[in-house]
Amino acid sequence: MSWLAAYSNDEDDNDNLGVDWVLQYEFGDVDQAQAITEFRTLIHDLGEAGLRVQVRHGHGEALLVCIRVPRDHLGNLVHQSRIKDWLFGITHTLPDGDETAIADADTPAEEIRSVYHAVTWQKKIGGAGITPGFGKWKNITASFPLHDQEACAQMLRQWNRKTVLTTSDLDAIRALFGEKVAFYYAFIHCYSLFLVVPAGLGILGWLYLGPYSIVYGTVLCAWCVVFVEYWKIREADLSQRWDVKGVGRLKVNRKQYVWEKEVKDPISGQVKYVFPGWKQFLRQLLLVPFASVASVALGALIVASFASEVFISEVYDGPFKEYLEFVPTVLFSLSLPAITSFLTSIATRLTKYENYRTQDQYDLALTQKNFVMNFITSFLPTILTAYVYVPFGKQIVPYFDILRRTGLTADMASGHKKFEVDTSRFQQEVIYLSMTAQVLSFGEEVVLPYVKHVLNQKWQNYRDGKAEYSRKRKHSATTSSFLVDSPDEAAFMKRLRSEAGAEEYHVEEDIMEMCVQFGYLALFGVAWPLVPLGFLLNNWLELRGDFFKLTLECQRPPPIRSDSIGPCLLGLDFLAWLGTLSTAAIVHVYRGPISEVRLSSLLLTLFVAEQVYLGMRFTASTALEKIFSDSIRREEAIRYAVRKDYLAASLARNSSLSSGSQGSPNGRTRHRVRFNERVNVYSSNEIEPSIDGTPSPTKEEPWNDVLRGSDREAQFWSAHSGDMADAGVKLIRALSTPHSGDVKSSKEA
Amino acid sequence: MSWLAAYSNDEDDNDNLGVDWVLQYEFGDVDQAQAITEFRTLIHDLGEAGLRVQVRHGHGEALLVCIRVPRDHLGNLVHQSRIKDWLFGITHTLPDGDETAIADADTPAEEIRSVYHAVTWQKKIGGAGITPGFGKWKNITASFPLHDQEACAQMLRQWNRKTVLTTSDLDAIRALFGEKVAFYYAFIHCYSLFLVVPAGLGILGWLYLGPYSIVYGTVLCAWCVVFVEYWKIREADLSQRWDVKGVGRLKVNRKQYVWEKEVKDPISGQVKYVFPGWKQFLRQLLLVPFASVASVALGALIVASFASEVFISEVYDGPFKEYLEFVPTVLFSLSLPAITSFLTSIATRLTKYENYRTQDQYDLALTQKNFVMNFITSFLPTILTAYVYVPFGKQIVPYFDILRRTGLTADMASGHKKFEVDTSRFQQEVIYLSMTAQVLSFGEEVVLPYVKHVLNQKWQNYRDGKAEYSRKRKHSATTSSFLVDSPDEAAFMKRLRSEAGAEEYHVEEDIMEMCVQFGYLALFGVAWPLVPLGFLLNNWLELRGDFFKLTLECQRPPPIRSDSIGPCLLGLDFLAWLGTLSTAAIVHVYRGPISEVRLSSLLLTLFVAEQVYLGMRFTASTALEKIFSDSIRREEAIRYAVRKDYLAASLARNSSLSSGSQGSPNGRTRHRVRFNERVNVYSSNEIEPSIDGTPSPTKEEPWNDVLRGSDREAQFWSAHSGDMADAGVKLIRALSTPHSGDVKSSKEA
Repeated sequence: MSWLAAYSNDEDDNDNLGVDWVLQYEFGDVDQAQAITEFRTLIHDLGEAGLRVQVRHGHGEALLVCIRVPRDHLGNLVHQSRIKDWLFGITHTLPDGDETAIADADTPAEEIRSVYHAVTWQKKIGGAGITPGFGKWKNITASFPLHDQEACAQMLRQWNRKTVLTTSDLDAIRALFGEKVAFYYAFIHCYSLFLVVPAGLGILGWLYLGPYSIVYGTVLCAWCVVFVEYWKIREADLSQRWDVKGVGRLKVNRKQYVWEKEVKDPISGQVKYVFPGWKQFLRQLLLVPFASVASVALGALIVASFASEVFISEVYDGPFKEYLEFVPTVLFSLSLPAITSFLTSIATRLTKYENYRTQDQYDLALTQKNFVMNFITSFLPTILTAYVYVPFGKQIVPYFDILRRTGLTADMASGHKKFEVDTSRFQQEVIYLSMTAQVLSFGEEVVLPYVKHVLNQKWQNYRDGKAEYSRKRKHSATTSSFLVDSPDEAAFMKRLRSEAGAEEYHVEEDIMEMCVQFGYLALFGVAWPLVPLGFLLNNWLELRGDFFKLTLECQRPPPIRSDSIGPCLLGLDFLAWLGTLSTAAIVHVYRGPISEVRLSSLLLTLFVAEQVYLGMRFTASTALEKIFSDSIRREEAIRYAVRKDYLAASLARNSSLSSGSQGSPNGRTRHRVRFNERVNVYSSNEIEPSIDGTPSPTKEEPWNDVLRGSDREAQFWSAHSGDMADAGVKLIRALSTPHSGDVKSSKEA
Repeated sequence: MSWLAAYSNDEDDNDNLGVDWVLQYEFGDVDQAQAITEFRTLIHDLGEAGLRVQVRHGHGEALLVCIRVPRDHLGNLVHQSRIKDWLFGITHTLPDGDETAIADADTPAEEIRSVYHAVTWQKKIGGAGITPGFGKWKNITASFPLHDQEACAQMLRQWNRKTVLTTSDLDAIRALFGEKVAFYYAFIHCYSLFLVVPAGLGILGWLYLGPYSIVYGTVLCAWCVVFVEYWKIREADLSQRWDVKGVGRLKVNRKQYVWEKEVKDPISGQVKYVFPGWKQFLRQLLLVPFASVASVALGALIVASFASEVFISEVYDGPFKEYLEFVPTVLFSLSLPAITSFLTSIATRLTKYENYRTQDQYDLALTQKNFVMNFITSFLPTILTAYVYVPFGKQIVPYFDILRRTGLTADMASGHKKFEVDTSRFQQEVIYLSMTAQVLSFGEEVVLPYVKHVLNQKWQNYRDGKAEYSRKRKHSATTSSFLVDSPDEAAFMKRLRSEAGAEEYHVEEDIMEMCVQFGYLALFGVAWPLVPLGFLLNNWLELRGDFFKLTLECQRPPPIRSDSIGPCLLGLDFLAWLGTLSTAAIVHVYRGPISEVRLSSLLLTLFVAEQVYLGMRFTASTALEKIFSDSIRREEAIRYAVRKDYLAASLARNSSLSSGSQGSPNGRTRHRVRFNERVNVYSSNEIEPSIDGTPSPTKEEPWNDVLRGSDREAQFWSAHSGDMADAGVKLIRALSTPHSGDVKSSKEA
């Protein structure tokens, strides 16, 4: 494959030289004295945490600090992390060894995660406390592990030999990049496989049913619901396979977290830093005004650009029409980034104010807000076309025609007659979204940044080369040896600098992109049956493109753990619901002539569709849970097995102890059930002093089941000391009404 | 309190004489020889399971077998049950002691539960295998523990001193009757407390707003949603307080359960009897035709009786009108039991066919079906009034007027004019439901059965007395001693026989009753603001009446554990949803003149109401979860504490072991991380034989962190052996562009 050439084939270049982590310190904006102090503190802190460092120069005014965790220390970190997993109930078997034990990491990701913790965790829990871009470390502009180029290349090569990923491929991604990234690939993989069904049906639908088919729409909605419910189960399954179920609760506090009180848990003895849940919830309610403001701002922009575009293309008839038609789109594209970045900054401030304990929760909340914005920018234009422009265009558009209305031109009557809404515009937009837009976004997301990154690196290298030459003569020999890469390292340092200059990888963005795609399908898929086919083909490429981006364009992300794709799951639920309503409405409106649609019948359709959706979701989740209950059962089995082993061990220990030093048979504690002293069901005795005035003081013989209590009781139980079966037989004989066949035996008695 | 007199105040009568369990064997229907064989087997089986028995005669042709579990045996059963709880992860601390240990039961319920297991569990898991009414034990007509009359009386006395139950009252119920019953009381308690809000608002609404108020309707719907979501949390909280969370999974198999294969779990080593989930789901789908048939059958009955009642009261004008008016209601009441029992028998057969593993699941599925039937019989009549009779009566009712339409009477024109729908009929029905019907049902449920039970016992005693007298002379002295109660036992035996003849208590029915009440409120409460007040008052009485019923009219139920109120929870969710739609529709239809209601605006109202409901439910569940997250946190803390203790213990053990017999320092295993052998992310090596051709064979020194791998690697890490901070400082000086302030220092370098 030609693009594999991007991975260097030279073995030497792929060697990471034992560098576990890299920090980039930039001092272009601070004065030298401060830079020196900061840098000394940095090296001091890293050294204090037991990390080895090497310093090299970066591009321009930047230093690269290569960090290596001594192997024994790293092994111990891995062990301690596993102990912590066990303590918090993420895993169920206690790792062997005491506090100083050293463990082998199972995957590169586990190793790198421990390195990440060693670098970033606060000092009191054993890290170096380096928080890039925050507080006193705000000049640390990059913090990343190096890519394992060989493994990445091998993986891409494997993928190119097959169409469908397997679970072992997902395991491999998890081993390299951690669970959070692996969950994205698991999601796109599962989603693409599911897409095969509507894609196949879509071809049939395209051939035989045409657009706006009731059958196809129903199937599509059902498919959406089933997919979302299945993914929830698949997610739980994977989180178990990867031992990350409930991993959120062991995450450390964010440095920015502000707590109101420290509470020592009475049961576990842990000190907890508590910020009240209801306060956080109240702060979260600010999402409502935020969503409203974002909707209004983005909505107004979209409506304005949409309206002016319609005006120019449909009504305007003046000069330069062919150029003016593009003006609204261009203006929209130009102003969108400004508005989005303004809204994002508000979202970030809001999220900070909401004061989450862990980075996970913080990211989750931020993603939620991004989802709202993404939802508006992605879906609103098409929603406007589908539900406003096409159905009401005939009434609305003439109002735009201000020029004619104000009488500036004369042919008013003819103008009104001329205007006719282009009803196929909606379908055209859907076709554009499912084909062209996908390809464009792929280019924008993968190809363009790659080209940019490569060119930028070339330019930086050129500049550095020039600077190096001029500096060489100015400095002492020692300094020079720092300034010039040794020939052995040159290729490695080039790669290192390139990775330091690369973008950070945010898996949330990729997940969100897939969510938006799912949303297009759920909301508008019924308008053109080939939409799922287009998405399926796109996803084949997307999967590989995203991996290419992850490994060659971006810094390797810290292998963070997670047990879900995060807040997008809620988004999927929401889109499946909205999709059902939207599909029903589109089918209802577009099947026949639009002018014949009545509001009451449309509302009835929507109302029925919603009930069908609710019923379908309930059925799907019940059925799938029933059918795929293996993962839940498996977890129970693991727990059971662990507890059984422990029980066996503890019994063996007890018996060895008792047969050993403390062999006296009386040493065995025997709790006996006090029977006739009635257990008082209330804790306080004051109300009912003692109905049973005389508690029987009979002393118990421990080895006999002697009946205690009142004499009457003893009497009852010894009343007929003979065989009770005989007693019963006697009674049966005595009490039974003589049946026809029993007369003889009855008489015998 | 006068009704407390029902509890005997004589201390002797309250003594259960150490009887743990009672079985009633009836042999009226079988011939004597068979009865004798069966009874011998019964006594043999009970004896084999290590239980002591005493036989007495019951009412008529019945024997009462009193069972007592020897205390040591019982203590061991309790201990083993706790071990099992621990193995299945219900509790988190392993009980002390080996297999033969004896434990003190914490509550009477725990003790009786172990007795219940000893009697009913199959032989291979240590019980006597007595399954009353099933298989060879079908002549065992009662199986119950005796009531603890003293504790019950004490409890009722306490309740009469206060208006509101406390959690310790619930704990007391749990201690006496087990968790399943306690959950019902917790539910009615929580529900009644919640009712205070709408009751208060209802009074205000009644004074100032009148019926069909939008404000009151909205508040009512919100209240319903919040209550259901709160109860879910409260339930989880209680299930944790009572240590029953997830208790369903340790329940034993039903004897009737048919499995397809036995699977030995590869992880836990348990043998599981598997019946495939998808098969069960397919069988469950039969619920759909069942619900349809039930709806049609009951619906038709209700519609017919409703229509004829309307016909007679509104249209008919012939003779005997005043008597005929009651005929439909009487016919309906007479035929309802037959139809219901027919449907119940179908439901039971369906549930049997669905083949559930545990009794819990079976009960749950049966309750689900009962819920469907209950829903139809309870709500359909009022729904018909609200949505058919009042809005469409004017169009429909004249069609009933067959007499006049066929021309049998002459004054057709005047007849048509006369008919006017009684629009207040709906409100009257709601008032009836919330006041009269509640009182009537209380009488029917509590008072009537009590009177019946008391009279029946009196009659049986009278009959027995006569029979005893006549038999006395016919039998030998030994037999006679069985036939006549000894004077000491007489009172006890009378109570025992009375309890044996009592009804079984089904807590599901009481829960269902509360669900139906909640349904009335959610669906129709807006029609009369005083409905919640009526319900609140009723529930005060209901709570006490139900307890009276439980303790004096019914057999003491086996103290079964459960972690929820069961399928009714789903019913509550459903009713809250339907209630929102119904409230919206009622307010919309009844606020103004009914003739002015338009379908499209009604549909719009419903559609909006549904979205509001969905939003409200999401908000309520998110907010409540956030605010009441204590219980979840508490469970985590318990787990954490247990694991931490265990870790400390295991570390202590290890260190004592190593310092003891195996004190050699080399005995300690040290796993080391192999670093430069790259971890192959694929399990198979065949595709990628070895890129890194020469795996470095350098042998490791275990105690040193010597850098291995290529020379280049060693070189990199030893390149600048000096202080790295100094190196960085040098680089900063060398690389920084001279700022205005830094010129001097830069020149110095």
